[in-house]
Amino acid sequence: MTNMYVSAKAQQLSQALSMGERRVLAKCCSLAESTRKEDQILLAEVLACVAVPTQPTRRIAVTGAPGVGKSSIIENWGASMLRDGHKVAVLAIDPSSKRTGGSILGDKTRMQSLANAPDAFVRPQPSGNHLGGTARATRLCIPLCEAAGFDTILVETVGVGQSEVEVADMVDACLLLTLPTAGDDVQAIKRGIMEVADVVAVTKSDIDRAAAQRAAAILQGAIRLLQPPSESWTSRIVLANAVNDHGLEELALAVDAFFAADRLDVVQRRREHQRLLWFESDVSTIMHDAMMRHERIHGKVIEMRQALHAGRIPVPLATLAVMEVVHDILQWKDKT
Amino acid sequence: MTNMYVSAKAQQLSQALSMGERRVLAKCCSLAESTRKEDQILLAEVLACVAVPTQPTRRIAVTGAPGVGKSSIIENWGASMLRDGHKVAVLAIDPSSKRTGGSILGDKTRMQSLANAPDAFVRPQPSGNHLGGTARATRLCIPLCEAAGFDTILVETVGVGQSEVEVADMVDACLLLTLPTAGDDVQAIKRGIMEVADVVAVTKSDIDRAAAQRAAAILQGAIRLLQPPSESWTSRIVLANAVNDHGLEELALAVDAFFAADRLDVVQRRREHQRLLWFESDVSTIMHDAMMRHERIHGKVIEMRQALHAGRIPVPLATLAVMEVVHDILQWKDKT
Repeated sequence: MTNMYVSAKAQQLSQALSMGERRVLAKCCSLAESTRKEDQILLAEVLACVAVPTQPTRRIAVTGAPGVGKSSIIENWGASMLRDGHKVAVLAIDPSSKRTGGSILGDKTRMQSLANAPDAFVRPQPSGNHLGGTARATRLCIPLCEAAGFDTILVETVGVGQSEVEVADMVDACLLLTLPTAGDDVQAIKRGIMEVADVVAVTKSDIDRAAAQRAAAILQGAIRLLQPPSESWTSRIVLANAVNDHGLEELALAVDAFFAADRLDVVQRRREHQRLLWFESDVSTIMHDAMMRHERIHGKVIEMRQALHAGRIPVPLATLAVMEVVHDILQWKDKT
Repeated sequence: MTNMYVSAKAQQLSQALSMGERRVLAKCCSLAESTRKEDQILLAEVLACVAVPTQPTRRIAVTGAPGVGKSSIIENWGASMLRDGHKVAVLAIDPSSKRTGGSILGDKTRMQSLANAPDAFVRPQPSGNHLGGTARATRLCIPLCEAAGFDTILVETVGVGQSEVEVADMVDACLLLTLPTAGDDVQAIKRGIMEVADVVAVTKSDIDRAAAQRAAAILQGAIRLLQPPSESWTSRIVLANAVNDHGLEELALAVDAFFAADRLDVVQRRREHQRLLWFESDVSTIMHDAMMRHERIHGKVIEMRQALHAGRIPVPLATLAVMEVVHDILQWKDKT
C-alpha cells in the first residue's frame, strides 16, 4: 500500500471481490480491458486493496495451434481439477475474434460445462487493437481472479503470433499442446514457445498411438536442443486424449510436479522478476506514448519516417532530429 | 540529404572516407563508439554526405560458441575472398573484452594475416557497458566500411547472450558455426540463432567425418522445425574445416548463392525494413533516456522500483504514479 488516496468505490469493489462475487470480478475484468484513464486508476486502487491469496496459486498458459484441442483439454482437465476442490479461472485469448468487451456468453459454446460450473470462471480476452493490448488486460485479470478466490488460472492462447510469448512472461508454467503429426504441427508453432514449454502434451494420441510416441520422441529432442538446462525443472512430455480422458491424469501429474511444495520458492522468485519486468515495460510504454502524443514530437517523427522511407536521410540523422525536439521540450541544454 | 547544416569537417571526413583512407575510417568508427553528442552529430553528418555504394555490398554475421573456430574460418575464408577481388571488413564483437576504444592492434593476434592485408580492415568492437552499446556502434560502422569501399562486411559475434540476435537485425545473412558434437554445442547456442541462420557450417569436420555428418543431419532437422518456410531462401548446411581449407569453397558457394543477382531485391527490401526498425528503436531509446534523465521522473521511477521490490505496491499503481509525473512535465490535463 502507498499513501495514495484510495476511493470508497475501490474499497467496495475489492471487498466484494474478496467475497468471490462473480459479477464484481467480471466488472473488474472489464476495467482491465478499458483504456480510459479513470478505469485504470480505479483498477489500480482495487488491486492495491485486495489481500494476497493465503494459498499458493497456479498460473498456467495453455497454448497450441488451432485445432489441437485446447478447449476440450481445458474442459476435461478443468472438470477434474474442480472435482479435486480447485477453483479454476480460464482467460481465453482468441486473436481471430473481434469481440471488444468480452463476455462469458461469448465463449459458452466452446467451454460450456466449465463456464456453467460454480467454481469456474471463463473469460474471453479482447483482442487488443493496440500493441500489447491483450497482454495488458490479461496480466491484470490474473491477480483479479486470484483475489476472487481462484487458485488455478489457465491462460489459453492460440499458438500464432506474438501473444503466447508475451503470455509466458505472466504465468508460472507453460503447457504446449501439439498434434501427433509433429513435423507439420511444430512448424506451425511460432518460435519461442518450444523453448519455454514446461509441459508438452501430444493430443489426440489415441488416433495413432505409434505416431504420437514418435512425435513425443521428436519433441523430446527439440526440447533438449532448445531449452537451457535447468536444475530446477526438466520439461515433461505426455500423451493426452481429451475425448476419453486418456492421459489427462498424466498431464495433471506433470503440472502438479511443477508446482510441488519444494518448487514454490522458484515460482515466487519468478513472479517477483516478472513484476519488475512488467513495471519497466509499462514505464517505457507510457513514456513513448506520452511523447508521441506531443504534437511537435509526433510531427517530427512522422516527417523523419517519410524521409527514411524515401531514402533521403540516414537513420542517425533522423534520430538526431527527433532528439533535438525531445530535448527542447524537456528544456535542456545538452552538455555531454 | 536534409536541409540540415553539414559542417566542413563532416564534408572533409566523408570525402576522405570515400577515397578509402583507412585512418579516416578508423576515426569514424571511433565516432560511432563515442557516446558524446557532438561526435554523434558529426558522424550523422558524415553518413549524410557519403554516396551510396555503386556495387551491391554483403553484410554477413558470423556467429558461434567460443572455440568453434570463428577466427580461423574468417581468416581463411577472408583470404580467399581477397584473392577473388573482394574488399573485406571484419567487425569483431567480443563481449569478454573490456577494451573501450577499439584498436586494430588489439585483435592482431587473432586475425593477423587478414589485419595486415591492404584490402582488409579488422576492427574490434567495444563491448558496450550500456544496453545496446555494441549493437549501436556496429550498426554505424557497417555503412562506414561500405563508404570506404569494402563490399563484404563480416560481423563476428560470440554465440552467447543477446548480441547475436541484435546483430541479425543489421545484416543480410547469418552464418552459424557449430562443432560436430552437435548435441552439446547446440545447447550452448542461445535460442534465436538457429531460427535465423541462413548458412550453418559444421567446423573441424575433418576430425571425425561421420560425427560431422550426423551433426549436420540433426541441424537440418532443427532448422526444419524452427525456421518458417520461405520461398526465397532455404538454409544450407555445409561441413567446413579451416585448418586445411576443406569445405571453405562450399561455404563460400552457399553465401554466394544467398547474394545471387536474383535475390538482391529481397536483400534490399530487408535493409529498408531494418532501417525503419532501427529508427523506431532509436526513437524509443532516446525518449526513454531523455525522460529518465529528468530529475523528477527519475526519482519517481527509483521510488516505485523500491516499493515494488519490497512488495508494497501493485505494478499498475506504480505505473500510474510514474505516469502522473510524466504527464505533469509534458503539461497535460488528461481528458481520456
